[in-house]
Amino acid sequence: MSSQWGKNLRMSIFGESHGTAIGVVMDGLPSGLPIDEERILFEMKRRQPGNMPWSTKRKEADLPEIVSGSYEGKTTGTPLCAMIRNTNARSKDYSVLTSLYRPSHADYSGSIRYDGANDPRGGGHFSGRLTAPMVFAGALIRPWLEEKGIFIFAQIRRIGGLGTKPIETLSEEELKSLSGLDFAVSREWDRKEMIEAIEKTRLQEDSLGGSIELLITGLPVGVGNPIFDTVEGNLAQALFGIPAVKAIEFGDGCEFADMTGSQAADEMRMDGDTITFASNHNGGIVGGITTGAPIRCRITIKPTPSISQPLQTVTREGVDETLRLTGRHDPCVVPRAVPVAEAVAAMVLADLLLGGGDHGDK
Amino acid sequence: MSSQWGKNLRMSIFGESHGTAIGVVMDGLPSGLPIDEERILFEMKRRQPGNMPWSTKRKEADLPEIVSGSYEGKTTGTPLCAMIRNTNARSKDYSVLTSLYRPSHADYSGSIRYDGANDPRGGGHFSGRLTAPMVFAGALIRPWLEEKGIFIFAQIRRIGGLGTKPIETLSEEELKSLSGLDFAVSREWDRKEMIEAIEKTRLQEDSLGGSIELLITGLPVGVGNPIFDTVEGNLAQALFGIPAVKAIEFGDGCEFADMTGSQAADEMRMDGDTITFASNHNGGIVGGITTGAPIRCRITIKPTPSISQPLQTVTREGVDETLRLTGRHDPCVVPRAVPVAEAVAAMVLADLLLGGGDHGDK
Amino acid sequence: MSSQWGKNLRMSIFGESHGTAIGVVMDGLPSGLPIDEERILFEMKRRQPGNMPWSTKRKEADLPEIVSGSYEGKTTGTPLCAMIRNTNARSKDYSVLTSLYRPSHADYSGSIRYDGANDPRGGGHFSGRLTAPMVFAGALIRPWLEEKGIFIFAQIRRIGGLGTKPIETLSEEELKSLSGLDFAVSREWDRKEMIEAIEKTRLQEDSLGGSIELLITGLPVGVGNPIFDTVEGNLAQALFGIPAVKAIEFGDGCEFADMTGSQAADEMRMDGDTITFASNHNGGIVGGITTGAPIRCRITIKPTPSISQPLQTVTREGVDETLRLTGRHDPCVVPRAVPVAEAVAAMVLADLLLGGGDHGDK
Amino acid sequence: MSSQWGKNLRMSIFGESHGTAIGVVMDGLPSGLPIDEERILFEMKRRQPGNMPWSTKRKEADLPEIVSGSYEGKTTGTPLCAMIRNTNARSKDYSVLTSLYRPSHADYSGSIRYDGANDPRGGGHFSGRLTAPMVFAGALIRPWLEEKGIFIFAQIRRIGGLGTKPIETLSEEELKSLSGLDFAVSREWDRKEMIEAIEKTRLQEDSLGGSIELLITGLPVGVGNPIFDTVEGNLAQALFGIPAVKAIEFGDGCEFADMTGSQAADEMRMDGDTITFASNHNGGIVGGITTGAPIRCRITIKPTPSISQPLQTVTREGVDETLRLTGRHDPCVVPRAVPVAEAVAAMVLADLLLGGGDHGDK
Repeated sequence: MSSQWGKNLRMSIFGESHGTAIGVVMDGLPSGLPIDEERILFEMKRRQPGNMPWSTKRKEADLPEIVSGSYEGKTTGTPLCAMIRNTNARSKDYSVLTSLYRPSHADYSGSIRYDGANDPRGGGHFSGRLTAPMVFAGALIRPWLEEKGIFIFAQIRRIGGLGTKPIETLSEEELKSLSGLDFAVSREWDRKEMIEAIEKTRLQEDSLGGSIELLITGLPVGVGNPIFDTVEGNLAQALFGIPAVKAIEFGDGCEFADMTGSQAADEMRMDGDTITFASNHNGGIVGGITTGAPIRCRITIKPTPSISQPLQTVTREGVDETLRLTGRHDPCVVPRAVPVAEAVAAMVLADLLLGGGDHGDK
Repeated sequence: MSSQWGKNLRMSIFGESHGTAIGVVMDGLPSGLPIDEERILFEMKRRQPGNMPWSTKRKEADLPEIVSGSYEGKTTGTPLCAMIRNTNARSKDYSVLTSLYRPSHADYSGSIRYDGANDPRGGGHFSGRLTAPMVFAGALIRPWLEEKGIFIFAQIRRIGGLGTKPIETLSEEELKSLSGLDFAVSREWDRKEMIEAIEKTRLQEDSLGGSIELLITGLPVGVGNPIFDTVEGNLAQALFGIPAVKAIEFGDGCEFADMTGSQAADEMRMDGDTITFASNHNGGIVGGITTGAPIRCRITIKPTPSISQPLQTVTREGVDETLRLTGRHDPCVVPRAVPVAEAVAAMVLADLLLGGGDHGDK
Repeated sequence: MSSQWGKNLRMSIFGESHGTAIGVVMDGLPSGLPIDEERILFEMKRRQPGNMPWSTKRKEADLPEIVSGSYEGKTTGTPLCAMIRNTNARSKDYSVLTSLYRPSHADYSGSIRYDGANDPRGGGHFSGRLTAPMVFAGALIRPWLEEKGIFIFAQIRRIGGLGTKPIETLSEEELKSLSGLDFAVSREWDRKEMIEAIEKTRLQEDSLGGSIELLITGLPVGVGNPIFDTVEGNLAQALFGIPAVKAIEFGDGCEFADMTGSQAADEMRMDGDTITFASNHNGGIVGGITTGAPIRCRITIKPTPSISQPLQTVTREGVDETLRLTGRHDPCVVPRAVPVAEAVAAMVLADLLLGGGDHGDK
Repeated sequence: MSSQWGKNLRMSIFGESHGTAIGVVMDGLPSGLPIDEERILFEMKRRQPGNMPWSTKRKEADLPEIVSGSYEGKTTGTPLCAMIRNTNARSKDYSVLTSLYRPSHADYSGSIRYDGANDPRGGGHFSGRLTAPMVFAGALIRPWLEEKGIFIFAQIRRIGGLGTKPIETLSEEELKSLSGLDFAVSREWDRKEMIEAIEKTRLQEDSLGGSIELLITGLPVGVGNPIFDTVEGNLAQALFGIPAVKAIEFGDGCEFADMTGSQAADEMRMDGDTITFASNHNGGIVGGITTGAPIRCRITIKPTPSISQPLQTVTREGVDETLRLTGRHDPCVVPRAVPVAEAVAAMVLADLLLGGGDHGDK
């Protein structure tokens, strides 16, 4: 199976970029949860191209139709299916893809996987468009987490060699401002520089990769499991479901390779009756289980392979060919991946919290 | 559930560091697979402390007892259980752990998770000792992969700020030599430097982190799935099951954040009838599915938190205290994690290949 | 989770009787399978009320809209979602259900399960209407089974105390005729009697239960697993998903209770190079695994609890009340359950056959 | 996979009749649960041959060794592995099985399933001996259920054409006496008759089938799920894991086929503030979810195929042959299956109750 995730709260994603519709079935939702349509629209708009120099004119947000699992504005607890119709798919633009494999896209690996039967138009089921139902799912469940005091923040940490300060150094105010930004970098100067770098790259018919940081606050201590059902493992498996994600780090992540044990130790101290940590190198997870400190997670996203520069490739018939993509392509998908990462993290956490056996009793 | 992994070939890990035994049940094995005891012993010895300056005298390898699933030297196809008895567990050494939480260990998060009922001695089920059954499982299934032409290589890439050349640049001979080394670094000079750095750190009562690189060759094109059941996601979920792993990268991994699309493109060309790639930035996986190029994967391992330097912590009763660990502790677990990472990767690949629907028909 | 089934081929059912739509996501389908629309319509029509004396006028078959997973008339191998809109739901008819629990319906147990938030109209997600997507799923996958020589037949065995001859005694011609009958009883006289019994019961404002027999031919030897993943167990778990099913028997089923070992033995003999059985008491499954003999399975369906006779019940507020259902209600759902049982069995078998590890290599 | 069951509490059964050991890994246990060794021994003794005329001398109960998951007499919450060594396996008795397929045993279907590699001695992994770890698992978790007021009773309902009164008509005292009986029939006369019938059949070198009834009291309303994750479906999938089970009925089961809706209606009435049912035809489950009434479930067990009468069969090489089993064989496994059925039901219920999303909040 390809497109299902979760043990207690399961999402089943379906659709192709140029098919009739895309969507998600959520099975295992708590019953009686108010469906916050405004929140859903807000999150889905964040995934829209945005008001960037390189953006196509802002389209209206995809409006998902909830066809089941909802009654009188609340979840029923039975499977909720939400669907987004593909209205303006112009298949002709993609006719080239039925003959050429685009390098670093899933055209080749996917075609072999499915014996050539999968939908090649716009990447089919591999399209970044499939992240829209993920955002829907996350937006639906986030109020349930937030009522428990669990909040998910995300920022762009790095794009095109330019960075901004780590998310754990942001003030509460800065964290809260992130979701309202078209381009989730809190420091204006950094944001401006990154946007310029993208625009410059676009004019060179090229694209940029980057990284996104998540900070998740308010989780109780003791959520998760050792060995194969860890918070890290669960987040990783789901986050690798976002197209173009190629690395996942927790806490100090790759920097641990150059650290000593004394540098990496999160010493503990009592603050009244409460256990506190002097640092959070582990990013809120030790032994696969939450420590109560915020979860810190970074994902790296490769530059989108859809660029206009000519690329050597081969046809489906096995003939060398040069690919020259035309039309507008997003020169950097990182900004739009921010709400997607938040949404996927929300689903993972809700799944863990809904499992009776996956956490302590408090 | 905590300690099970796999859909088609499932391993169920059990045991505590100082309990009666540790082991694994493997359910879904191919039937009739010869059980290569020499190979199993070889791989399990690689996980032993080794002949390093800081090592305790080399113990004999753990000898797992196969109590089911084997008949006349071959797998039956029904569940195979292998068990390793904990013979020389000296629980008194660990009495301190029943009163103190060791910083950056799972003592605190695990204790809350299990309401204080889990075995605190030596980390209990969170102990690195639980990687022994993983190595067993991998050693059992690897000949099945190798018969299909699939080989798994691993090296230490980085320790204590020191690195060696990337695994994809190693010659076939160098790759093959790695599993025979106590310290899996092919270039002698790099190896010597890293070993010295560890020894120096040990004398400072400290420890070191590092990173390991995997190279997996011979996988056919088209193995894996889009979205939530990707090769990356499956490897990540399982590899995060190795204690102290805090980051996982595929292909160029975190470096993608600073790259452009033209730099990251794996252009394609025909070589006779065969499709070849001019580069392998994607590490052999695109869209969650293998491309036929080698899988490149890097994991980062945090420095072991068991150091002799005093650390601020709290007692289980909530009183500030200083922890002073005594006794010998491994100053760097990276070398011993090399065969563990290989084994876990072997299980993940076998699981994918045993799923009828998870790959093309070739 | 409530409404998902399958390990290799997974169906995720969604919808409520009076919601916007019902449907199914099928994940794990073989790619390139032609979508036989005629077959789908044919099977879905079989589930329609039919041309019985008590039937409402024959409606056109529900036309499911395939919104994903299909390309150029074939399955892509990625998730296929099919949806049926609820066009003529008249919610007012069901207003009574928002105040009363109907005895032997899921109104009470479901309401407590979902804390009163589930959709009460027409049974909501518990409605028999949810069997329509099951029939769709089965109809889609059956040609794949049939190409392998696997055929599924079903008949009504018993209704209202009246029976017909066992399905294993039917000739090939009789078996093949079953799917073309509005009322799946091969012997005309038996059929006539049963239909009359239903009509008579209807006039008494009552309903009838019955049983359905499945015969599945052409399965290879060696499909299935011992202990918890048996062919029997898998069929049972899925078939209990059909509303009102209360018993499942394999082979001689309940009659085994009164038999001796010598009576129940399926003796074996060589017929040329082929192993044959002198009898098939075990119904084609021994040790959870197919023997090559036809699978025989019988399910018992309770009489529909929707009857017009007054019934004692209570309101949702906890007050004694008498329920007097008005309007037309199907006096016997057994005939319409026949294609549903076939479809569910098809999904179970395809799931087993698509699992690389669930059967021998032949 | 063959031998794993459960979503929240998972048991992984391993072992062969004549291998080194059999056992179970339980993953997902509540932590801090006292391990009641007396209870475990009591339940395991109930599965022993017993003091019947046809029994071999009563052996001491299998003593399982708990090798992990236990600390200071309580469950740790991490995987608990229990093992029973096969001490007195006399493989020579079974040499015949390496050449002949025993009719109605899994010798043939299992051999094809595993390409001849599975252990043929004593049925290998298909042996009834594998029910011992099931009984262990059930005995471990039952006190947890009983603390919640949930009790599981079972009786033999029918053997060799002889029956006793339905379990729902037994008094509380009679129900409680059942587990103390070697032969779980409450009415002495019925018990005596059944025992005589078995002994008589044994002298005729034959065997008998029978049925077992379960009554489960104290479950709250609202446990379970609609469609594919029903209480009926879960119990059925797991109970079919007991060798020789061929039918499963809930409530009135097969009798529903001959009933009317008015006869089958479980009318409801208020008794003070509590909803009560005038009858329990549905056996405590409607829509896959508990109603609060006792669960009634009946399983039918085929006569053991190990009889001394000569049987026509074939050799593994495909030659007609006559099988003449010698040695003692249990002429009726029904009495010993009683505690097994209880144990499996206990695991199923605990699994459902441990799933956060599988029941209401009360």
